[in-house]
Amino acid sequence: MSILLKNIGKLLNPRSDGTWDEISQAAISFDDKVLRYGPEAAMISKAGDAEIIDAGGKLVTPGLVDSHTHVAFAEPRQAEFEMRNAGKSYQEIAAAGGGIRSSVRSLRAISEDELVERILPRLNTFLQYGVTTIEAKSGYGLSTEHELKQLRALKSCAERHPIDIYRTLLAAHEVPDEYRDNRAKYLDIVINETIPAAAEAGLATFCDVFCEEGVYSVDESRRVLVAAKAHGLIPKIHADQLSYSGGAELAAEMSAASAEHLDYISDAGIRQMADAGVVFCLLPGAVIFLGLDRYPAARKIIATGGQIALSTDFNPGSSATQNLPLMMTLGCVFCKLTIREALWAATYGGAAALKCTDWTGSLNLDQAADLVIWNCDDERLIPYYFGVNLVQDVYKSGRLVVKDGKLLA
Amino acid sequence: MSILLKNIGKLLNPRSDGTWDEISQAAISFDDKVLRYGPEAAMISKAGDAEIIDAGGKLVTPGLVDSHTHVAFAEPRQAEFEMRNAGKSYQEIAAAGGGIRSSVRSLRAISEDELVERILPRLNTFLQYGVTTIEAKSGYGLSTEHELKQLRALKSCAERHPIDIYRTLLAAHEVPDEYRDNRAKYLDIVINETIPAAAEAGLATFCDVFCEEGVYSVDESRRVLVAAKAHGLIPKIHADQLSYSGGAELAAEMSAASAEHLDYISDAGIRQMADAGVVFCLLPGAVIFLGLDRYPAARKIIATGGQIALSTDFNPGSSATQNLPLMMTLGCVFCKLTIREALWAATYGGAAALKCTDWTGSLNLDQAADLVIWNCDDERLIPYYFGVNLVQDVYKSGRLVVKDGKLLA
Repeated sequence: MSILLKNIGKLLNPRSDGTWDEISQAAISFDDKVLRYGPEAAMISKAGDAEIIDAGGKLVTPGLVDSHTHVAFAEPRQAEFEMRNAGKSYQEIAAAGGGIRSSVRSLRAISEDELVERILPRLNTFLQYGVTTIEAKSGYGLSTEHELKQLRALKSCAERHPIDIYRTLLAAHEVPDEYRDNRAKYLDIVINETIPAAAEAGLATFCDVFCEEGVYSVDESRRVLVAAKAHGLIPKIHADQLSYSGGAELAAEMSAASAEHLDYISDAGIRQMADAGVVFCLLPGAVIFLGLDRYPAARKIIATGGQIALSTDFNPGSSATQNLPLMMTLGCVFCKLTIREALWAATYGGAAALKCTDWTGSLNLDQAADLVIWNCDDERLIPYYFGVNLVQDVYKSGRLVVKDGKLLA
Repeated sequence: MSILLKNIGKLLNPRSDGTWDEISQAAISFDDKVLRYGPEAAMISKAGDAEIIDAGGKLVTPGLVDSHTHVAFAEPRQAEFEMRNAGKSYQEIAAAGGGIRSSVRSLRAISEDELVERILPRLNTFLQYGVTTIEAKSGYGLSTEHELKQLRALKSCAERHPIDIYRTLLAAHEVPDEYRDNRAKYLDIVINETIPAAAEAGLATFCDVFCEEGVYSVDESRRVLVAAKAHGLIPKIHADQLSYSGGAELAAEMSAASAEHLDYISDAGIRQMADAGVVFCLLPGAVIFLGLDRYPAARKIIATGGQIALSTDFNPGSSATQNLPLMMTLGCVFCKLTIREALWAATYGGAAALKCTDWTGSLNLDQAADLVIWNCDDERLIPYYFGVNLVQDVYKSGRLVVKDGKLLA
């Protein structure tokens, strides 16, 4: 049976060109997919035997899409947060056992089943913040065995949980301890073993690489992504986060789905990515959580015709948040996005970064019925009341999964 | 009947000197006030006929105290948020009808009863973020009639709602439009009419003034606060927020309960306030929401022996958040507080700023049974998982008011 959600004060549906279809006093009908939406009066006359639910005059948008997460971690790293604020350098923290390598140790130490149990409650939290689709990366295994374990755990989670998860192989997230003195050998393993194995097992849609001084160079990143493409994985790149690396230009060259962070992107990188249709995935949560002050040049990106996604970068080291609406606030304040641009970046833009705009991120015919009823009638209040969760109800594929802010069993 | 809350994984109770009483596997007994707490085994043997409730191994702290809010506003100012991010100056926003004067127009336009209805749901939100006591200011009336209306509305709210509200007269928040060309006349009204009337009606405990270039000078602020003290109101001062004004030194001279913001406080101001026992009330939410980058010198304040409170500054213009735990994150990242210092500032420190440490902000005998059960067993996770609400259950004066994150009717 279908649902007719009526008395929607404002329905906002993002279009591919960055504009919005906006209807006051609207209704939307759906089963697991969207059937149609429009002005309420016309919709009610065609309601048939649909179950009618009253949205109370509230705002309805598509479910949010968080296109960059590292949700599959074993342990939080709160001690490192404290050390960083006390002025410890990255090197000191690493020497004390912190950083990505700490997450690698804890991830390797637990079983796939245990990892699933740790991820599932985090997926609930995403739903409570209005997020109905996420991307999730490996990258804490740093061996074929443990990278695939991470991806399999994410696949199991998606089978057990309403949220949609797009999986990304990030075997080139760091150099594992055991190959510190022979990074070429680890890259060979990634290219000749991990990528083929993940692709063959159907465990990943995307392949990402951390292209940054001290991690992987542009040349190394290119080798990884060329191999990924040869195996049918779509490239993504962590690029120009802490310094300019040329990663954005590589993203364009590789026709990546998206490039991530981009706090130090060059003008040439912006132009090339925009021309190549690579989505600019901005992660302001990592800037603030690391206490930094350089944000990506979003206005220049938009002026150049680039498409922006906003994501949490949820991870235990540099951005321990799952509050995507709060990233909209940071996008507005520090990247100078308009509120509509920020909302677009957290819906359609996120789906564009995952190449799934036909499925979610907007509310068109035959797309998943992923939608949020907000506890307000004005989308401007979402980033404005910052840090306060205005998500009221969430439907995922037509099923009510959050009601009055509470997760339904 | 009393309650015995057992199986507390960690109980944290702040002491006046900034240290903590910390007990693992603890229990606490209370009716509307705290009876005692200690290691669980000893507590259970003395349980008597208390109702026993299991805290599930979680962390318990005092309820949070938000010692600086402007919760009694009529309308949000989301349009101004958008304008500011688009690069409009304060002057342009004011010319377009924004700023405090916009809040004055909307506040004056509604009745006291209507104002009560608008405040009450915001008090619910505070409880959901673990805040059991707030300070709340007038300052959007800017006439004796409307300032008193605001304070009476707050008094009515406190009578109808579990949260404790300490009221502050802030008639000197701005110069009202009708006295733009005769500010001396408005100050005379504040001093000779508004302050006496508010004090006589028992409507305020504190009197605050916005001491800042372009608003009230140090001399004007002194006149207001001298009058306030003469009428039994305790001084507070918005000081050194956007520029150095000498407001901190005035706070010391006046023996204020606290001085607020302090982003530009001088070293002399720090010394004098610390010597005078004036609490340093830090409001990092306003820094971030305004897109600024100068935070108060918290480490210097602590090194000088000053007591810090952390608050939301919840208001419709410069800090539209009610998430006090998120202010802890900002305090850690940008003011370089330790996590324990941030938690202290949001509990004991807040109570110190309100001169109510005998009543709340800690969990000692005969204090209000205001406590939070957090959805974690480690206080470091509260600021770490930033923007995500870890409040599970809240007791206010011994009554369960939030359960599993949901407000009870």
